[in-house]
Amino acid sequence: MLMRILVVNAGSSSLKSQLIETDGKVSLMKCLAEKVGTPDAYMNVAFAPDFQKVTYHVADMTVAECLKKLLEALVDDPESPISDLSQIDAIGNRIVAGGEYFTKSVIIDGPAREKLELCEELAPLHNPPADACIDMMAALMPSTPQVAVFDTAFHATMPAKAYMYPLPARYYDDYRIRRYGAHGTSHRYAAQQAANLLGRPLRDLGLITCHLGNGGSITAVNHGKSIDTTMGFTPLEGLMMGTRSGSIDPAILTYIMRREGISFDEMDAVLNRESGVLGVSGLSADMRDVLAAADAGNEQARLAIDMYVYRVQKAIGGFYAAMTRTDAVVMTAGIGENSAELRELIFDGLAHMGMILDRERNHVVGQIGVNRIISIDDSPIKICVVTTDEEMRIARETDNLVSQLG
Amino acid sequence: MLMRILVVNAGSSSLKSQLIETDGKVSLMKCLAEKVGTPDAYMNVAFAPDFQKVTYHVADMTVAECLKKLLEALVDDPESPISDLSQIDAIGNRIVAGGEYFTKSVIIDGPAREKLELCEELAPLHNPPADACIDMMAALMPSTPQVAVFDTAFHATMPAKAYMYPLPARYYDDYRIRRYGAHGTSHRYAAQQAANLLGRPLRDLGLITCHLGNGGSITAVNHGKSIDTTMGFTPLEGLMMGTRSGSIDPAILTYIMRREGISFDEMDAVLNRESGVLGVSGLSADMRDVLAAADAGNEQARLAIDMYVYRVQKAIGGFYAAMTRTDAVVMTAGIGENSAELRELIFDGLAHMGMILDRERNHVVGQIGVNRIISIDDSPIKICVVTTDEEMRIARETDNLVSQLG
Repeated sequence: MLMRILVVNAGSSSLKSQLIETDGKVSLMKCLAEKVGTPDAYMNVAFAPDFQKVTYHVADMTVAECLKKLLEALVDDPESPISDLSQIDAIGNRIVAGGEYFTKSVIIDGPAREKLELCEELAPLHNPPADACIDMMAALMPSTPQVAVFDTAFHATMPAKAYMYPLPARYYDDYRIRRYGAHGTSHRYAAQQAANLLGRPLRDLGLITCHLGNGGSITAVNHGKSIDTTMGFTPLEGLMMGTRSGSIDPAILTYIMRREGISFDEMDAVLNRESGVLGVSGLSADMRDVLAAADAGNEQARLAIDMYVYRVQKAIGGFYAAMTRTDAVVMTAGIGENSAELRELIFDGLAHMGMILDRERNHVVGQIGVNRIISIDDSPIKICVVTTDEEMRIARETDNLVSQLG
Repeated sequence: MLMRILVVNAGSSSLKSQLIETDGKVSLMKCLAEKVGTPDAYMNVAFAPDFQKVTYHVADMTVAECLKKLLEALVDDPESPISDLSQIDAIGNRIVAGGEYFTKSVIIDGPAREKLELCEELAPLHNPPADACIDMMAALMPSTPQVAVFDTAFHATMPAKAYMYPLPARYYDDYRIRRYGAHGTSHRYAAQQAANLLGRPLRDLGLITCHLGNGGSITAVNHGKSIDTTMGFTPLEGLMMGTRSGSIDPAILTYIMRREGISFDEMDAVLNRESGVLGVSGLSADMRDVLAAADAGNEQARLAIDMYVYRVQKAIGGFYAAMTRTDAVVMTAGIGENSAELRELIFDGLAHMGMILDRERNHVVGQIGVNRIISIDDSPIKICVVTTDEEMRIARETDNLVSQLG
């Protein structure tokens, strides 16, 4: 069934949205709002086929208020493919944290909405604005079905030995402190695309999927199921990222807070926004800038890259140990898809594990958007590149569920 | 040269000491004081050849005061092999943290003593009592040479990509927050013993040494040098341990402190003393108790073991990736040497990596204290068990340095 689906990806201070025609996988509208909640907030909206940006000023609005403004533009703008909200067939909402309440995407009915409320404390910055968007749209378009697609759901198959922390049991009992992971739809999609590339059923494969973007996580996908992932209770755990530290000695937090007298919020901000590639390089969270600086001789930039690569390699090694067989490593998201240089650094260090990059294939350009294998033909473990499109995946999940409504 | 060396291993609330005759590697006296600084403190002293314990009450004394009491016993006790402190040829002090100041064991002269002072803030619970012991002995026995042997020194060869954290650079510049590792003398010794077992020079080997005791760490020893280890800024990082959590999502700390309103000290205490095997099992920090409970059907105990084993496996996998070749995995310390059951659980999950346990060799008993290979003959990567004796190793290092004094 051809459906027009509005995909809503609400962040703590951002809103990403697309209007997607599912059958043809065509995007009809793209929207990005940033710095939401500040006086500098702006929202760019662009319609097919030209995607010429129109910028709206949305100073000091909430994320849900921005979305309402977008809905008005969808109805009023002469470029818009629709003139009435009833022409939107379904809404797909990306939700960061589904906790233990949601192990797959769901139609948002009354009970689901109540459970969403319970998830808010697991992602206090991200879930509440998403829930506010859901409520606003339910009021404006009460007969349009809404779906929730969770970053965490794919990881619901992790065994206890992977998701439990070595902490006193009361923290799990009282607060549900455990590992939930993230980027779930991306890892699921990357695994399926890799199976297609390899021409083998996903259920027969052991895969290590690497979502390397500004955030980053690696997942062990065994027989199609996530058995472990590097992100944990929050997206701070695991790899070094653009601005996040990833895993560090936990004792460093109390040490720094004691010495500097900073608050919990300030400590969280340092680890989430001032660390990682940005913190070590002192330059940028964007790997392209840092690679360029390193090539120009900047030592801190070189160190940031070395650390980034090394931590990816160790995580791949850890999951290689965790699975009884690894058939392929799959690279996706901004860095994973686009940085041939970083892929080369990562896999040059892993040839002894049977992951043998074909340097020429790795550097082939002009193929952006095409999934491909970049290892040599007889590499025991294949290396794949898969392009990801989070909004398209959310639209597909939404289509699947809404179609079943009949 | 035959030397009588007093080994002093001062902890935050404990004192271990031995009088060791280095040439014959014979222990003449063993001392253990626990709960030091509390009204319940006690100190057991025992002399060769019978090692019959005499218990001293040392309520509310400092660690250095306990050591002074021990020195009195060494002079006064009729069982003691010495009657005067001048009969002690040298003193070997174990120091937890040497920071970036010490990359090997040193004779404690004036400049070294000053640098020791600077290391105190890196291990505020452990280094100050050790330094106090050094000062007390320097006053009582001014002409007896003292040596400092550091837990961290072996790891001084780690490259920056392994020892730096993905944090803002100022934390390293201002506070020297970096990864230092620990158990260094144990990893160094285990690597050398494994080389002897394999009949190949240490400089040709890639080894993964696993010190698994109440504390635990794993080290990648490449060509005889530590290139990475699981403990970091403090001994909290890395593996799940008897009472320590090891690595967790750093965001958990601020989350718990906010929810429970506990102090930094309380948070540190939870992570260092109430977590790990004890926290998950709810029973004991002692793996023998937990294994027995799991065998009797206790599910929390089973979970604690599964998590412990899984985290060791992932760490081995990470270092397998980090080294271009792994020749052997070496097990040492309490659990590593003595728990055939845990070794079996660990290596049953790693056979696909070419680490193939010989179950019979693994279970051979009556060989405690003998280093041995427990993998099958054609295992691509060998598995070794090496018995460790920290005090004996400190005595050997002390002997080496003092002999060079001439």
